[in-house]
Amino acid sequence: MAETTDNLSFILNKPFDVTFAQQPKPELTSPHDVLVAINYTGICGSDVHYWEHGRIGSFVLKEPMVYASPFSSSSVPPNFPLSQSLLPQTAHILTLLLPQNSLGHESAGTITAIGSAVTTLQVGDRVALEPGTPCRRCTPCLSGHYNLCPLMKFAATPPFGGTLTGYYLSASDFCYKLPQHVSLQEGALLEPLAVAVHIVKQAEIKPGQSVVVMGAGPVGLLCCAVAKAFGASVIASVDIQPARLEFAKSYAATHTFTPSRVPAEENAAALLQSINLPSGTDAVIDASGAEPSIQTSIHTVRRGGVYVQGGMGKPEITFPIMELCTKEVTCKGSFRYGSGDYALALEFVSKGLVDVKPLISRTVEFTDAEQAFKDVKGGQGIKVLIKGPNEK
Amino acid sequence: MAETTDNLSFILNKPFDVTFAQQPKPELTSPHDVLVAINYTGICGSDVHYWEHGRIGSFVLKEPMVYASPFSSSSVPPNFPLSQSLLPQTAHILTLLLPQNSLGHESAGTITAIGSAVTTLQVGDRVALEPGTPCRRCTPCLSGHYNLCPLMKFAATPPFGGTLTGYYLSASDFCYKLPQHVSLQEGALLEPLAVAVHIVKQAEIKPGQSVVVMGAGPVGLLCCAVAKAFGASVIASVDIQPARLEFAKSYAATHTFTPSRVPAEENAAALLQSINLPSGTDAVIDASGAEPSIQTSIHTVRRGGVYVQGGMGKPEITFPIMELCTKEVTCKGSFRYGSGDYALALEFVSKGLVDVKPLISRTVEFTDAEQAFKDVKGGQGIKVLIKGPNEK
Amino acid sequence: MAETTDNLSFILNKPFDVTFAQQPKPELTSPHDVLVAINYTGICGSDVHYWEHGRIGSFVLKEPMVYASPFSSSSVPPNFPLSQSLLPQTAHILTLLLPQNSLGHESAGTITAIGSAVTTLQVGDRVALEPGTPCRRCTPCLSGHYNLCPLMKFAATPPFGGTLTGYYLSASDFCYKLPQHVSLQEGALLEPLAVAVHIVKQAEIKPGQSVVVMGAGPVGLLCCAVAKAFGASVIASVDIQPARLEFAKSYAATHTFTPSRVPAEENAAALLQSINLPSGTDAVIDASGAEPSIQTSIHTVRRGGVYVQGGMGKPEITFPIMELCTKEVTCKGSFRYGSGDYALALEFVSKGLVDVKPLISRTVEFTDAEQAFKDVKGGQGIKVLIKGPNEK
Amino acid sequence: MAETTDNLSFILNKPFDVTFAQQPKPELTSPHDVLVAINYTGICGSDVHYWEHGRIGSFVLKEPMVYASPFSSSSVPPNFPLSQSLLPQTAHILTLLLPQNSLGHESAGTITAIGSAVTTLQVGDRVALEPGTPCRRCTPCLSGHYNLCPLMKFAATPPFGGTLTGYYLSASDFCYKLPQHVSLQEGALLEPLAVAVHIVKQAEIKPGQSVVVMGAGPVGLLCCAVAKAFGASVIASVDIQPARLEFAKSYAATHTFTPSRVPAEENAAALLQSINLPSGTDAVIDASGAEPSIQTSIHTVRRGGVYVQGGMGKPEITFPIMELCTKEVTCKGSFRYGSGDYALALEFVSKGLVDVKPLISRTVEFTDAEQAFKDVKGGQGIKVLIKGPNEK
Repeated sequence: MAETTDNLSFILNKPFDVTFAQQPKPELTSPHDVLVAINYTGICGSDVHYWEHGRIGSFVLKEPMVYASPFSSSSVPPNFPLSQSLLPQTAHILTLLLPQNSLGHESAGTITAIGSAVTTLQVGDRVALEPGTPCRRCTPCLSGHYNLCPLMKFAATPPFGGTLTGYYLSASDFCYKLPQHVSLQEGALLEPLAVAVHIVKQAEIKPGQSVVVMGAGPVGLLCCAVAKAFGASVIASVDIQPARLEFAKSYAATHTFTPSRVPAEENAAALLQSINLPSGTDAVIDASGAEPSIQTSIHTVRRGGVYVQGGMGKPEITFPIMELCTKEVTCKGSFRYGSGDYALALEFVSKGLVDVKPLISRTVEFTDAEQAFKDVKGGQGIKVLIKGPNEK
Repeated sequence: MAETTDNLSFILNKPFDVTFAQQPKPELTSPHDVLVAINYTGICGSDVHYWEHGRIGSFVLKEPMVYASPFSSSSVPPNFPLSQSLLPQTAHILTLLLPQNSLGHESAGTITAIGSAVTTLQVGDRVALEPGTPCRRCTPCLSGHYNLCPLMKFAATPPFGGTLTGYYLSASDFCYKLPQHVSLQEGALLEPLAVAVHIVKQAEIKPGQSVVVMGAGPVGLLCCAVAKAFGASVIASVDIQPARLEFAKSYAATHTFTPSRVPAEENAAALLQSINLPSGTDAVIDASGAEPSIQTSIHTVRRGGVYVQGGMGKPEITFPIMELCTKEVTCKGSFRYGSGDYALALEFVSKGLVDVKPLISRTVEFTDAEQAFKDVKGGQGIKVLIKGPNEK
Repeated sequence: MAETTDNLSFILNKPFDVTFAQQPKPELTSPHDVLVAINYTGICGSDVHYWEHGRIGSFVLKEPMVYASPFSSSSVPPNFPLSQSLLPQTAHILTLLLPQNSLGHESAGTITAIGSAVTTLQVGDRVALEPGTPCRRCTPCLSGHYNLCPLMKFAATPPFGGTLTGYYLSASDFCYKLPQHVSLQEGALLEPLAVAVHIVKQAEIKPGQSVVVMGAGPVGLLCCAVAKAFGASVIASVDIQPARLEFAKSYAATHTFTPSRVPAEENAAALLQSINLPSGTDAVIDASGAEPSIQTSIHTVRRGGVYVQGGMGKPEITFPIMELCTKEVTCKGSFRYGSGDYALALEFVSKGLVDVKPLISRTVEFTDAEQAFKDVKGGQGIKVLIKGPNEK
Repeated sequence: MAETTDNLSFILNKPFDVTFAQQPKPELTSPHDVLVAINYTGICGSDVHYWEHGRIGSFVLKEPMVYASPFSSSSVPPNFPLSQSLLPQTAHILTLLLPQNSLGHESAGTITAIGSAVTTLQVGDRVALEPGTPCRRCTPCLSGHYNLCPLMKFAATPPFGGTLTGYYLSASDFCYKLPQHVSLQEGALLEPLAVAVHIVKQAEIKPGQSVVVMGAGPVGLLCCAVAKAFGASVIASVDIQPARLEFAKSYAATHTFTPSRVPAEENAAALLQSINLPSGTDAVIDASGAEPSIQTSIHTVRRGGVYVQGGMGKPEITFPIMELCTKEVTCKGSFRYGSGDYALALEFVSKGLVDVKPLISRTVEFTDAEQAFKDVKGGQGIKVLIKGPNEK
């Protein structure tokens, strides 16, 4: 009964109501898939948001809800209803229903089985998991923008289960083999690092440029580190918590700034004065989602510069649109990560260009997962890792 | 006394208070400059705004105010104070004060004198005038973005005089010689056409793409025509005035749409349904400046698409920032026109790819200039041209 | 026995040795595939090259050789050896061996069966066939450059069979549904048109630019037409055959030029003089593969311009590398077609922006296929279409 | 008579025939210019080539030849003929003839006088000199590609004098103020560093990418250093001299490779095997100009990669054009440096991202300039600096 005893999962029933339960262990069905025993999973703000609200944007948890593994193909357990309505175009592959709403999507693990067509990975390989698999056939996929795929199957985004489980089925090309000198804990951190890589790419940061990063949470800090790896020579971290700024300075920022309760123009002017760039910075990244930060961003970026919205927040805000127009600012969204982002995140860690280890505040047992969510919600530490259920 | 009798100018004293007055005829000073007798000048919304409010954004008319020609060099009339403070870096060339606040910046004329270094133009050449001259030495200028030059000298933008005058001094490389088959009236229309060219370039419109243009005023209409010349195959014009949409359809739009007083999402959905592109359009251009149009734009553009703010309006609006973020929309401002825009506008007219003649509603005598402003403010016609003071 | 009697194929045994033979009719295996009854197939220079030499570049015909359909899955005929060595990473799908070396890859047909996951096509739909299917999982595929996929399965490129057969199995997303007003014959022409689209994209041709196209064969002519659809305002066709230039002028070129037996610099200078662009053209496309044309191209393109090698020829030539260096010319290859190219080709034909009908010289019966190859080799006509074996 | 006694210049009369002579000290004429006392000048291969051959490409030394300073304006010495024919469009500013063919263009110096419009520099500022001034008015200049300006006035390129002189007149925006912690010797090295910056930009090197640099002379070494600053994680230096490779490895390369006398494909395969990238590298830079290196480059770069020709060599070579075509390689020239390159070079040195000091082999007195040329020709050291004639 290994399949049932060792695939413990951490499941969200409804907001703030979680349980641990065994799930059927996934089976390889596509020749291109691999099975991964999860070793470590990080918790991020979106996990906490989902735990609190039972939804992430338009993806809503249903009760009692189950979902279909994107990759499996065997018989359907009789007591598992089929939520095919959400996936009309992929209905044909929904032949086995798998874990209920398990949480988690920032994971690294070890390959335990590979499909017959897999040539790049072997059983025993330690891998970082890119937690979303696109359809590979739509226009965004074929044009290199799979993060915009409308049929994306993303871990822990209803109706797809997450990685706080024993075994996870993944497409082989979405697993990234870790070199010997990169730990599984670092591997779990590749997920937020890939988020930061995508944001910094969107910001078109070039060597020698200046960038302001609004917010010094995990993603904001990693944006500073990635901007440095991209050659930025001025990196200003902005936050209202002094301890975070202190860490940012020791980690990757060249400057820090604490905004005041004044109009956005004034904060922007004071910030630019403090870094001696009165004409504005080449790029501004908002990793906070806070309305005043976004407003300040537009007043901080130089004429012809780039501003990237990387953090989630209120759906609508008051926005200085004419400032954007007359300065010809380019304003971009950044959504998850896409082509090459995970590979670049791994390259950065592997070559020592970005060090993710300082961000790991502590590591807890699988059975302490709920406490980890509470700690992250309470602002304890930067990044908490949860061991896989079978990890010693 | 030709110099004084034939350089009649149309001058703004204060909002709604205009006069006609003779100005000293400019003299060639730089070897790279040319003198142009103005034949035709178009009136645009920003002229009317300036006429009404005495300011355009941060450029404010002062009374009694005079300004220095960017190109002249002779002696200063004793009663003309020198507004050097605005131009510290170019103060050395401010040696003659010229026309008071003459209006106008959409002009074509005839060369009457050329500097000693001018090899590309001759006396008698008919030219379209690009009305802003950059410093040529700052980072934006040297990197090909002269429209973002902080030292730009732009016609009819205080403290610089406009083209509703008899003779205008211009840098030779900002004059575009008209081929024989292109009229001077068409030449005057190159200015708003260059605005549209710049907007469409910002929108990165590629052949076969779909674009929505919000607003069917002169710039919106020209954006439709330019999008067509760029190969767009779906061009939807949106306006609340049926007559404008009718014209847009006959001119360059493939589809038209009248928005309703419903939330932006609903207008966007109805618009997309009407053009059979439920996933959104490749690009959306706002040439209206209206808050509901901008909001609808973000809901109309597809994932990964481009939205360009081309029209001026309220400085701040309520903006669906998270929709932009999760769809990875690129949002850009567009400011005037830059490298290659005027040349491309002329190429389009010269090769018949854009026809600007249908936009010319009527042409009035120079002495009727004030009435032309009133008509434009009142929404009479699409584009009114004013003859130069010496034009028969 | 419909399956065996109606899947007649036109097969290359060895250079100049062809036969007609029945092949097993393919069966749907992947839920994403469709079966297409071929209606029309065009013949191009690479087909003729393959027919003459039994190889296309590094892809070599083996005798007796068979190959595996990229999509099929049933039992293997016992007398068909398995050429798995060429496809180690996809060996798991090689379970049925299908047509021997059938020729052809420029085809349109009619859907006769669809897989269970296909939602965008129906039986009876008329489609153009993009004849290469990439692996969807390698770095080029995931980054939007599937034409560079090292595991590409391309029709009539050993070991993959071609489309001069009755029924062809295709991935559904590589079939493009033709609107009612686009004929199947036009659909077959989408293939060379997509080649031209890719070349012109590589040339980065922008509205109002000038381009020289070396060679006025089918691809060169289509490059002229696509350049026009991209807004190029000067399009010079260069060839040594007056009849071809005459056709080019009537079709899409604004200028034509006949090179002489003089050094490349002299031909370039004479060409540029004839089109009144002494400083060079924005882009030059070589669709000839001829060494003198390539040399002339580099001397024809302006400083900072783009030159694209679109035609195949000698592997190595004498090349003016320092001219390229000091003019900062960008020189690019163009290989087949990639993301969005087929869709754009169809959009051009559908909206009337490119007319491919004038290129169709004649249409022959399937059983006259060999004669069609001889005619194309002999330079008869521009494009010959071969009816499918079941086409009336 | 300070003006005549302290402006000693090092002048090329004809190949291998040099003299020291006093030149009239330049005078400020344009309000935007500055006068710079030269402190240090580096010698590069193009200087040596000019010294040997009396020409650089199409720029030919004439005897007796004089030339006009691009910036001066006073009276013309009666015995100096005017070579206006080369500069018809700028003839109006040729009013004083200055130094005969002085050599040198890699210099740093100290401001001794500034024009009335100069606000960004002061007398006494230590600056690096960008040695070419463009016309600012042509299409390349206005579009941000001033290095392609056909009217460029470049130091030590006939008819323009070089910087191996006492005082040099420069446009203020082509002088880069050195921070206190950057030495004048480092400032002189900004010129070859800017060459390398431009090459690496042309190569579009992105963080985490792999690059091969052919040639480990000064520019090749600096390309390695700049590639590192751009975030490249594999940087392979290729040269036939072991000592150079040893230096490259200690300086900025991650790998080195010595080519053999075998065909280009074999050298490419061996190189790629040695760096464990069998599919090719993202970019290849040729900083050697040698035919075998260029051929190897095309076989080394990956599908869809970029190859940049940075080194000068034979005008024509045997080139594997079809390899370029089928791999869709982008091949670019790189010519001098353009918008932002000098500024980025300074930023790299100032922030410690590139260390140019290890390249300075030795520094000689001005009166030993000829010996320095002989040493460079003989391959002695990496970079030799010559003190200005007034430098202690």
